[in-house]
Amino acid sequence: MKRNGLIFGGSAVVGVAILLLLGSAFLDADASERDAEQQIRAVLNEQQAAWNGADITAFMKGYWSSPELTFAGSSGVTRGWHAVLERYRERYGDAQAMGHLHFSDLEVHVLGKDAAFVLGCWHLKREKDEPGGVFTLVFQRFPEGWRIVHDHTSADAIDRK
Amino acid sequence: MKRNGLIFGGSAVVGVAILLLLGSAFLDADASERDAEQQIRAVLNEQQAAWNGADITAFMKGYWSSPELTFAGSSGVTRGWHAVLERYRERYGDAQAMGHLHFSDLEVHVLGKDAAFVLGCWHLKREKDEPGGVFTLVFQRFPEGWRIVHDHTSADAIDRK
Repeated sequence: MKRNGLIFGGSAVVGVAILLLLGSAFLDADASERDAEQQIRAVLNEQQAAWNGADITAFMKGYWSSPELTFAGSSGVTRGWHAVLERYRERYGDAQAMGHLHFSDLEVHVLGKDAAFVLGCWHLKREKDEPGGVFTLVFQRFPEGWRIVHDHTSADAIDRK
Repeated sequence: MKRNGLIFGGSAVVGVAILLLLGSAFLDADASERDAEQQIRAVLNEQQAAWNGADITAFMKGYWSSPELTFAGSSGVTRGWHAVLERYRERYGDAQAMGHLHFSDLEVHVLGKDAAFVLGCWHLKREKDEPGGVFTLVFQRFPEGWRIVHDHTSADAIDRK
């Protein structure tokens, strides 16, 4: 009986430790989801600030620095960090073309520990026009932080100006 | 010493069991990713078949049946399963308007146990035109299977016909 008691005692300690670990993992899930959302919103705030400082390279820091990065839209799919940078450079060559960028209606949907997607609106205030539309961003968490691994951006069919 | 041995023995059994569980979980990850991709591709195949049978309700089975479902594009964001169904019904009222749908270049990116995104192309063959473009679908796994929780679809700026 004593031996069984000891075996049971030993297993019970390990069992309780596991339950405590699992319990704290579940309690931490909400906090970690809030952290993820905050960190993702921070990336987008930094992107907006970089754009409005006419610094496309700094803006690109929000994207995954990989040949697997994808950008989709009405002109198809652009692949790779460098190609996405070039696409921005071609379309927004100077501060006037870049205008003033504003993100709004951001909805961060956490999809797990290391993934999320964001639905939001973009609006560009320029001298001659005010294009805008919606975007979907797929984010993944990397050692360096949350980065956009896929961007699908649409321009509104009707100019909302 | 004997008591310690027994305690150690009891803990060791539990410890080994945990290691085996964790080990098999890691080994299963690849297989589960392949399963996820297969299941997601099956949902898209069923959607394509339903569309080509001019059955929009069956096509809609691929979407999360929730007021939180979102559909984004050049006309903004449509929210909720019913509103997305209505959007399809308005734009594709009959078999002629629906035409023949073909999905291609599907890339399934698994983002974890219960989430994935798909990048792909759509092409509609109709009597009068052949619209097409790219889409991004965010999938989540539910008890009933993988469902699209967010769809961002773009039409090509240039008709590729």
